[in-house]
Amino acid sequence: MQKPLAVLNKAINQQVIVELKAKRSYRGILEGYDPHMNIVLKNAEEVINGSVTRKLEQTIVRGDNVIYISP
Amino acid sequence: MQKPLAVLNKAINQQVIVELKAKRSYRGILEGYDPHMNIVLKNAEEVINGSVTRKLEQTIVRGDNVIYISP
Amino acid sequence: MQKPLAVLNKAINQQVIVELKAKRSYRGILEGYDPHMNIVLKNAEEVINGSVTRKLEQTIVRGDNVIYISP
Amino acid sequence: MQKPLAVLNKAINQQVIVELKAKRSYRGILEGYDPHMNIVLKNAEEVINGSVTRKLEQTIVRGDNVIYISP
Amino acid sequence: MQKPLAVLNKAINQQVIVELKAKRSYRGILEGYDPHMNIVLKNAEEVINGSVTRKLEQTIVRGDNVIYISP
Amino acid sequence: MQKPLAVLNKAINQQVIVELKAKRSYRGILEGYDPHMNIVLKNAEEVINGSVTRKLEQTIVRGDNVIYISP
Amino acid sequence: MQKPLAVLNKAINQQVIVELKAKRSYRGILEGYDPHMNIVLKNAEEVINGSVTRKLEQTIVRGDNVIYISP
Repeated sequence: MQKPLAVLNKAINQQVIVELKAKRSYRGILEGYDPHMNIVLKNAEEVINGSVTRKLEQTIVRGDNVIYISP
Repeated sequence: MQKPLAVLNKAINQQVIVELKAKRSYRGILEGYDPHMNIVLKNAEEVINGSVTRKLEQTIVRGDNVIYISP
Repeated sequence: MQKPLAVLNKAINQQVIVELKAKRSYRGILEGYDPHMNIVLKNAEEVINGSVTRKLEQTIVRGDNVIYISP
Repeated sequence: MQKPLAVLNKAINQQVIVELKAKRSYRGILEGYDPHMNIVLKNAEEVINGSVTRKLEQTIVRGDNVIYISP
Repeated sequence: MQKPLAVLNKAINQQVIVELKAKRSYRGILEGYDPHMNIVLKNAEEVINGSVTRKLEQTIVRGDNVIYISP
Repeated sequence: MQKPLAVLNKAINQQVIVELKAKRSYRGILEGYDPHMNIVLKNAEEVINGSVTRKLEQTIVRGDNVIYISP
Repeated sequence: MQKPLAVLNKAINQQVIVELKAKRSYRGILEGYDPHMNIVLKNAEEVINGSVTRKLEQTIVRGDNVIYISP
């Protein structure tokens, strides 16, 4: 059994995709998270409709926006 | 009586379908879950309008998106 | 006075209709529930606009989708 | 001062109207409730746009759907 | 400093307007409330687009629908 | 560091703008608040699309409607 | 591991972008925050569709509106 937060923990310092309800996703290095699935990404790219629309050195995504997080 | 989380527990390491509010579903091997119904899938396929739109080696789906989970 | 969860409890192993916010309902045998109204159905049929659109041997419906449950 | 749940309690075994966010209402005998305003109705009629669209011998309405309940 | 619930408390037995998210409001005598801002109104009138659309001798409005309450 | 509720506290008895999710805002004297950001305004004006659409001697705005509050 | 709130804490007194669900963002100096991600900005600019639409000396943004916060 792999608990969701344990899987997030193993993904620390790795590239992840964070898909949001607001029809956009963020790709970047997972720097941190908390039990609400708030997450910290480094060198993040915002992707809307398949295009990179923004680059963010560091960003904190509020967990309630998340559909899925994939290592 | 079969409690919802006990049914999830029996489905560990089995193929499940996770139907989401955002008009999409994920099929994959259930690796884990927590009491919020956050779930971990392995070898997941995203299905939108009946077509596979993405493959994800591993993904954590946030529980508040879920309509149903079927073993 | 009939408490909502007590009424659910009496419906265990009986046929129920579960009407969801997402304009669909599920009919099946109630196998279990929890205090969030997450429920387990056996031999469930998904009904959209009056037509059966899917059959599910067993399914766990997340409680926050529910409008009503009728024994 | 009349607390909301105390008013619900006095309405037990009486006819009530339950108006929902999903543009529909239910009329029936109030059999029970809990602190989330989940409620149990007996001999309920679903009303959409002024027409009775369904009859339910007994139904449990999840409280988060409710706009108002009127004895 | 006037705490929100203390202001509600002073409005007991007075006429209030309750504006809801569902583009409607209720005017009536405030009979009670609880910490979720669930409220009890007596002799309430439902107002939609400036017209009285319903009269309710007594009604319990679930707090999560409320935009504002004005004494 | 200025905690959000401490900033609200300093704004007591001052004019504030409260911008809501429902495409409207209220301007008035901040009389009170609580930890949910429920707030009490005195001499409030409702503003929709830049026009004053209503005046309210006193109003309690439920916190979950708020986008921002500006002193 | 960088916890989300610890990252916010390091950004105190620095310029941040706060992207909201309501298709707008705020740029300003982060003055404070709390565990709900309610935040205080100083010298904030509201940006809608790439244009500055408002300037606010100080503003408290309610955390449940936030998509992301970037230092």
